[in-house]
Amino acid sequence: MADSHDYKFVGWMGLDKNAAQGNMIWQEFEPKAWEETDVDIKITHSGICGSDLHVLRSGWGPTPYPVCVGHEIIGRAVRVGNKAEGGIEIGDRVGVGAQGDSCLGRTQGHCDECASGNEHFCAKHVGTYGSFHLNGDKSHGGHALYNRSPSHFVFKIPDSISSASAAPMLCAGITTYSPLKHFGCGPGKRIGIIGLGGLGHFGVLWARALGAESVVAISRKESKKVDALKMGADSYIATDDHPNWDTESAGSFDLLLSTISSSNMPIAGYFALLKRDGTLAQVGNPDDGVFSVPAPGLIIGRKRLAGSMIGAPGEIREMLQLAADKHVKPWVIERPMENANQAIVDMEKGSARYRYVLVNKNHL
Amino acid sequence: MADSHDYKFVGWMGLDKNAAQGNMIWQEFEPKAWEETDVDIKITHSGICGSDLHVLRSGWGPTPYPVCVGHEIIGRAVRVGNKAEGGIEIGDRVGVGAQGDSCLGRTQGHCDECASGNEHFCAKHVGTYGSFHLNGDKSHGGHALYNRSPSHFVFKIPDSISSASAAPMLCAGITTYSPLKHFGCGPGKRIGIIGLGGLGHFGVLWARALGAESVVAISRKESKKVDALKMGADSYIATDDHPNWDTESAGSFDLLLSTISSSNMPIAGYFALLKRDGTLAQVGNPDDGVFSVPAPGLIIGRKRLAGSMIGAPGEIREMLQLAADKHVKPWVIERPMENANQAIVDMEKGSARYRYVLVNKNHL
Repeated sequence: MADSHDYKFVGWMGLDKNAAQGNMIWQEFEPKAWEETDVDIKITHSGICGSDLHVLRSGWGPTPYPVCVGHEIIGRAVRVGNKAEGGIEIGDRVGVGAQGDSCLGRTQGHCDECASGNEHFCAKHVGTYGSFHLNGDKSHGGHALYNRSPSHFVFKIPDSISSASAAPMLCAGITTYSPLKHFGCGPGKRIGIIGLGGLGHFGVLWARALGAESVVAISRKESKKVDALKMGADSYIATDDHPNWDTESAGSFDLLLSTISSSNMPIAGYFALLKRDGTLAQVGNPDDGVFSVPAPGLIIGRKRLAGSMIGAPGEIREMLQLAADKHVKPWVIERPMENANQAIVDMEKGSARYRYVLVNKNHL
Repeated sequence: MADSHDYKFVGWMGLDKNAAQGNMIWQEFEPKAWEETDVDIKITHSGICGSDLHVLRSGWGPTPYPVCVGHEIIGRAVRVGNKAEGGIEIGDRVGVGAQGDSCLGRTQGHCDECASGNEHFCAKHVGTYGSFHLNGDKSHGGHALYNRSPSHFVFKIPDSISSASAAPMLCAGITTYSPLKHFGCGPGKRIGIIGLGGLGHFGVLWARALGAESVVAISRKESKKVDALKMGADSYIATDDHPNWDTESAGSFDLLLSTISSSNMPIAGYFALLKRDGTLAQVGNPDDGVFSVPAPGLIIGRKRLAGSMIGAPGEIREMLQLAADKHVKPWVIERPMENANQAIVDMEKGSARYRYVLVNKNHL
């Protein structure tokens, strides 16, 4: 089958750093060259992630403009390569997250990461946008009409999860699910979720779904307390508004998940909250990228600062199943795809409660 | 039995910050008031630890002068309380490390740390010197003729370990043994030991004794390479002398043990050395006390920075048994007790190869 199809790849393109201020341009782009392991997706929903803003403004290093961002993509498979994985068929509702590809043993023989189900840590990790595929073509994301992605990173969505709910699970969801699961969230554990934004609100939902004994939302201000309790948090700590928050709750947490994407955080206080052998898992990656860790906070109590980054395909499937089984429902605000520029400006302002999802009404 | 005995507690006392420059004064001090859980030790050997210098100069906060430092103490039990633990008898060769006491459930009911064999993380941790016992009396260390310590923290020394070898095991030894064991050093693992001083040299010895597949010593300069290989390291990385050390060995270590007591370390490079899910365990506690941790170094590969601090009594016994079984022999230089001031000056200069042990010749 030749690379012919009756649809065009058109989306919101960032042309330079100014794109991050709501200046993306709607125009056609060239998807990666078709391979028979690929799937083309007619996009219905595309969640807006903080990463979109980091990349649009070259916050994590120079961005290869022009780029179409968005890596919480849901839609229908409209073309499926004859070597595609995962039993995907045309018409299936599918999703793509933040990872577009990995080596899968194709480029330099055996890869420990890909072979062990840790594709997200493969040295050849390809981002869904702003990155380059193994064939050299630029990758483009989901704030668009269509997306083309390697099938290993395309996931069937369980029927019971709405598309608006499924979209943000693919980045915000897995980024929080993976470390919670990996670092032992579950029955008998007291879990703190630091930061109540798109990621943090998922943290509360997952910690609850994973059966944690107690879930505490930790944010700067008192203002999100009502929401946090509605999401399922047992209690709430406002670090700016409660002067003795760190001593009052000292030594009481097994695991803290920090979704703060800034190095300006009261990290010594977070360590004080941990029990012996507790872990502070950090998933936010600030533009400045350095954390100042107090040595005594680590050494006394044998505590740990750990990083985590998105999750592997196997973990994404496990998360989707948990979401289906436990009826996990993120707090999502749908915005028309045509209003993407306003939506990213609102996102940057912190107005999302708690995730914006762009919707292509004509594709529903 | 009244508190009477025919010996006096005399030792090298730090009277103010200047003591750290070799100005300790030999004079009598008041040991803690005798309790029937205590043991009095006629000191034969007392290792010099970096902590002695930190405390003598008030590097970790104000020191309650006058103080007698030294927490790698070996000697003979000369008085044993009738409620002493551990089957210690008068005449037994015993040792005391960096911890002098913990609550053991005596002060405020059940203590998770003490009950679970993690006495070193008890909130009532009493340092062997420069601290205060539960009865309020000041604690004094081993650069002296006699020491009085609660028996829970007094250890019988296996016959096959010489006193000069056993002394530094009680702090430098356990401080490195505990994190290596806890964080998985053993067969099949590639271990890096960062810093080749008193602690680091033990790190190499323990990693070997614990059966690590490969042990690499990592230091700034090439100068300690010959020693490191003699200690049992398979190879050596000199980070100041090899420009590409971090990229050449990237992603190859399961566990790094950092014994550097300075926050001025190439920490981003250390993280690069780790495999996915690898741990950088930090045991040094610098006076300035803050590590600058690069977020991407943690997040990509789900890596961890962990702290560790000395070890619990159970671990100390386990370590002594391993040392006896595997004939672990630290590199020790014996110095006469009367030359303690010169010895601490030499220690501060970094001249120890690799541990000074003060010896009371008259007590042998």
